[in-house]
Amino acid sequence: MRLRDLLPGKKVRMLDPHSVGVVDRSTVHFAQPLLLQSGVQLPYFQLAYETYGELNEQRDNAILICHALSGDSHVAGYYTDDPEEKPGWWDEAVGPGKMFDTNQYFVICSNVIGGCRGSTGPSSLAVDGRRYALRFPVITVQDMVRAQTYLIQHLGIQTLFATAGGSMGGMQALQWAVDYPDRVKNVLFIASTPVSSAQNIAFNEIGRQAIYVDPNWKRGDYYGSAKYPDAGLAVARMIGHITYMSEYSLESKFGRRLQARTDIHYTFDTEFAVESYLHYQGYKFTERFDANSYLYITRALDYYDVAQGYGSMEAALERTQADFLVVSFSSDWLYTRDQALTLVQPLQALGRDVEYHHVEASFGHDSFLVEVETMNEIVGGYLTRRYAALRTE
Amino acid sequence: MRLRDLLPGKKVRMLDPHSVGVVDRSTVHFAQPLLLQSGVQLPYFQLAYETYGELNEQRDNAILICHALSGDSHVAGYYTDDPEEKPGWWDEAVGPGKMFDTNQYFVICSNVIGGCRGSTGPSSLAVDGRRYALRFPVITVQDMVRAQTYLIQHLGIQTLFATAGGSMGGMQALQWAVDYPDRVKNVLFIASTPVSSAQNIAFNEIGRQAIYVDPNWKRGDYYGSAKYPDAGLAVARMIGHITYMSEYSLESKFGRRLQARTDIHYTFDTEFAVESYLHYQGYKFTERFDANSYLYITRALDYYDVAQGYGSMEAALERTQADFLVVSFSSDWLYTRDQALTLVQPLQALGRDVEYHHVEASFGHDSFLVEVETMNEIVGGYLTRRYAALRTE
Repeated sequence: MRLRDLLPGKKVRMLDPHSVGVVDRSTVHFAQPLLLQSGVQLPYFQLAYETYGELNEQRDNAILICHALSGDSHVAGYYTDDPEEKPGWWDEAVGPGKMFDTNQYFVICSNVIGGCRGSTGPSSLAVDGRRYALRFPVITVQDMVRAQTYLIQHLGIQTLFATAGGSMGGMQALQWAVDYPDRVKNVLFIASTPVSSAQNIAFNEIGRQAIYVDPNWKRGDYYGSAKYPDAGLAVARMIGHITYMSEYSLESKFGRRLQARTDIHYTFDTEFAVESYLHYQGYKFTERFDANSYLYITRALDYYDVAQGYGSMEAALERTQADFLVVSFSSDWLYTRDQALTLVQPLQALGRDVEYHHVEASFGHDSFLVEVETMNEIVGGYLTRRYAALRTE
Repeated sequence: MRLRDLLPGKKVRMLDPHSVGVVDRSTVHFAQPLLLQSGVQLPYFQLAYETYGELNEQRDNAILICHALSGDSHVAGYYTDDPEEKPGWWDEAVGPGKMFDTNQYFVICSNVIGGCRGSTGPSSLAVDGRRYALRFPVITVQDMVRAQTYLIQHLGIQTLFATAGGSMGGMQALQWAVDYPDRVKNVLFIASTPVSSAQNIAFNEIGRQAIYVDPNWKRGDYYGSAKYPDAGLAVARMIGHITYMSEYSLESKFGRRLQARTDIHYTFDTEFAVESYLHYQGYKFTERFDANSYLYITRALDYYDVAQGYGSMEAALERTQADFLVVSFSSDWLYTRDQALTLVQPLQALGRDVEYHHVEASFGHDSFLVEVETMNEIVGGYLTRRYAALRTE
């Protein structure tokens, strides 16, 4: 008799031996100030984080996964046993036997500073007991990483076996090796760039402008209002979303298919499936994301330049002691092969150990989440080799 | 003594023998109804247009240039002798000795139906004496072309030597040859597509959503209000603008250059030159464009499919009797080479005379306006050869 037969009328999630299962989100509060790159100090801060797997005795099997713009600490697993619940944002990658094999590694992920998913950000309370809103200081990727060092310290880890991430996560993974060279052994830099381009900045700014247009944004002071700037945030998300997909993904998924109709209606209402999809993506996002956090995190993306504070990219990269896995995707037009190469080439020139893969993939920037089999080989393979080498050192 | 010395303190425009000089915009009113593709009738309509050069006795040297989303009838020349005035949108192309040589050809351009630059559109008065606003019927590229047939008739021209246009102008140029096959001898289809893709629709829809977010839009009923939906329209324009430029154009023009400062200020105010440029482009656009027209024209773009009404692209193209010049640009990611080929290949299969050029160019979709020398050769050369052949027929 199967489990589902015991519980008539109630769906249960099928047991998956490769899932991390039900997990908890933890929060750690740091009472000391965080000095930001701008020179401003956050008087105190907290980070929401999750861990999967076990830290070994040598404390040398920890991997920090860093999330992208819209991500959070919930990489894998479920919060409840509700079979309708969707798993974490990179569940395909983290679990027993997966590329980040939790039988082997202790995997950590924390929500970035500036975020809205448990870490201190613009929606958090300031010293005066009111929400920061735009009083929150502008933060950078470097600040996100600095905040993470407190968490890693808190977890009793001196050196990370790896930092890893796609998109903005890749920037953080890289920055760890630049700012804290003796604290990370491997950097997994996926679908990312060491410096945001003019086009990257342009898309981010247009998203912010869409939020500013929303009358419910009120220059950031909407917390506690009946209405939040959902419409503006949804447009910002739609703009972002389109940069994550290739022309091919949109064409193959939707083409010119009409939404729930067989004939054109000649109207501004939703005609095309691709419109319906964008609306859904936009509005779904507003249920879980804070518009002000979107402003802060996109601004951090704009500012991202690995050279910042070190004079040049070479000077910054010369500090690194880690080995590197760099992956780019052929149809990723947000962070292109050329942008990946601006990291790979100077690292190689500096004699660093760099494994670079340019993957033929159709699904644009999102390929790093979608191409599970290829990523399993590349990322899983890289980690396995490096971890074996570490064990026999 | 030079002319400028005669007028101290007053700048005068230098005389340019290749300019069409000061031109006038004309308007023609059609008292009869225009039947639209949706089945709705516009009870009457008007078109704003300009002409350059002279119609010859045989009336066989007329070229209709069709404009893109944000264009109008003012292709070339100036309205005044104010030396600060910028010329028409394709001034480089139209004039004595230019690719559309006004010594040779009679060049016509009209503002599209649905527009806001003199032709009937949502800002026009309806029968009840009030502005149409969203009561204006949804229009298509096919409708724009149908309206143009009235103008061509009005000008006493039976057959056009050529229809020509870039982007949405290319769609109109093509549609002429499909809907009115005996009335056009050559189609110049530049940086365009015979059918809008899912990505094309997505970008258009996001632009419209940005307008909807603006509280001053008021579901289109803003005419006569103190405030117009400029902020939303500006965001829509910024979205559009970024699709007209290549990553390279943005990078080479702006990179990460800061705007009027030497250090990062860590602020949401304008930091980067590329932001300043986008703001300028967005707001400048609101001075000359109507938000509702932007909705209608982008919707026409979404609907654009040369096959519409004919069952298939082959069936549509089989109707054509014209010869074709098709040009695409390597860095144009709005209307790509692949999209151009979806027209070129079936035309060739049908045995049509097609000259196809894929131009290596760095400036994205805007290349067709920017690459003057190459376009002179390709477009000018094509027209010269065809016109010579016509004269010796």
